[in-house]
Amino acid sequence: MYNAVSELGETTVVAPDSERSGVGHAVTVSTPLQIRKHKLDGRIDGYMVNGTPADCVKIAVNVILGSHAPQLVVSGINLGPNLGVSVIYSGTVSAAAEGTLLGIPGIAISLDASGNPRWDTAVHVARTISARVLRGGLPPFTMLNVNVPNLPLGEVKGIAVARMGRSRFAEIFHRRTAPRGNDYYWLDGDLELLDDADGTDVQAVRDGFVSVTPVGFDLTNHAVMAEIKKWDLRL
Amino acid sequence: MYNAVSELGETTVVAPDSERSGVGHAVTVSTPLQIRKHKLDGRIDGYMVNGTPADCVKIAVNVILGSHAPQLVVSGINLGPNLGVSVIYSGTVSAAAEGTLLGIPGIAISLDASGNPRWDTAVHVARTISARVLRGGLPPFTMLNVNVPNLPLGEVKGIAVARMGRSRFAEIFHRRTAPRGNDYYWLDGDLELLDDADGTDVQAVRDGFVSVTPVGFDLTNHAVMAEIKKWDLRL
Repeated sequence: MYNAVSELGETTVVAPDSERSGVGHAVTVSTPLQIRKHKLDGRIDGYMVNGTPADCVKIAVNVILGSHAPQLVVSGINLGPNLGVSVIYSGTVSAAAEGTLLGIPGIAISLDASGNPRWDTAVHVARTISARVLRGGLPPFTMLNVNVPNLPLGEVKGIAVARMGRSRFAEIFHRRTAPRGNDYYWLDGDLELLDDADGTDVQAVRDGFVSVTPVGFDLTNHAVMAEIKKWDLRL
Repeated sequence: MYNAVSELGETTVVAPDSERSGVGHAVTVSTPLQIRKHKLDGRIDGYMVNGTPADCVKIAVNVILGSHAPQLVVSGINLGPNLGVSVIYSGTVSAAAEGTLLGIPGIAISLDASGNPRWDTAVHVARTISARVLRGGLPPFTMLNVNVPNLPLGEVKGIAVARMGRSRFAEIFHRRTAPRGNDYYWLDGDLELLDDADGTDVQAVRDGFVSVTPVGFDLTNHAVMAEIKKWDLRL
């Protein structure tokens, strides 16, 4: 990601001090946060925080950068997709969301790869979309969730503005037994698309497109408000 | 919560083994989960899990209850409100959301109190709304986020079906210095309502009503899709 955006402007790297997969929009309120300077690959000055991706953005904006507010928050590049309902479990998405909630345009970039990631494709996409947002901004209270198919750039079919596909995790708990006899469980599972209409992010990436989804933060299901009102709930 | 719902049907308590404030929709994928039986208040059989609220619901449905799927997932009663944008940081909400994502109606109950919580009011509300949902179900992919004002039951003005208010956290990082000289930070802050139109959850609770918000999981900001498509993004 640094390679994608550092040529667009002054770039500050702030990242969790270890992998934070599946942390969703977690923030750290019951333990304190520490900031440590760190040189990435021996050349890029950055900061490590003992918190979540959302913590990193909050502390970057409020403490590290202070009055020097950033024009853009980019998060990722995540190894693995953040499509459909994965969005609500994603630390990558939460960091971009946090930027947007702080009034700074946010972009999350994820690469739909497990092995042999095509980082160069994702870097190109990240740079292209970041440049566009730096130039024209984003609608208020909106971030972009971008997913990149794991293909050489020349084989990517294009960029599709897509909605979040209705989906669920088909979960598997793998049971293991510890040497002292107690059982423990590893959570695992696959995303299952429940939505066969056109225009979803899941389908776009399967078809070889980059998906770009504008994500908002009003979780109200407005379509059912009238129905719930008819319940006429009383104490 | 057990007192609220146990008279409505067979109830199984599954909870994190310690407070999990601000965990959002975090799930645990990089460490294993363990389940321990635990007797609450020396009388209620339950289970403790070394995970997040969302983990608890996943492992309850997939492992603890197995083929005996529950009819309802109730989460809470949280000490403190989950109004407006707090929803995305809330472990209480995430557990109810997880039920809904698994196809089981989910309800999150939070009490807008810091000191002197009126648990009896929240218990009454939790029972009333749970009974209604057990009887009539919920629209698909929808959970209820319920917030209870911290008042004696007789002073609560009623139940308002309300949308999630647009809001943000006004953050404060409190700096402290450790004995060895390094600084560390505590994250703190207050919810700030940015939305002065009628009908928000924040306003309903301030006015002494219970707020009931139907929450969905399509985070797409559909209102701006057309605008983003006009960008005509190219690789």
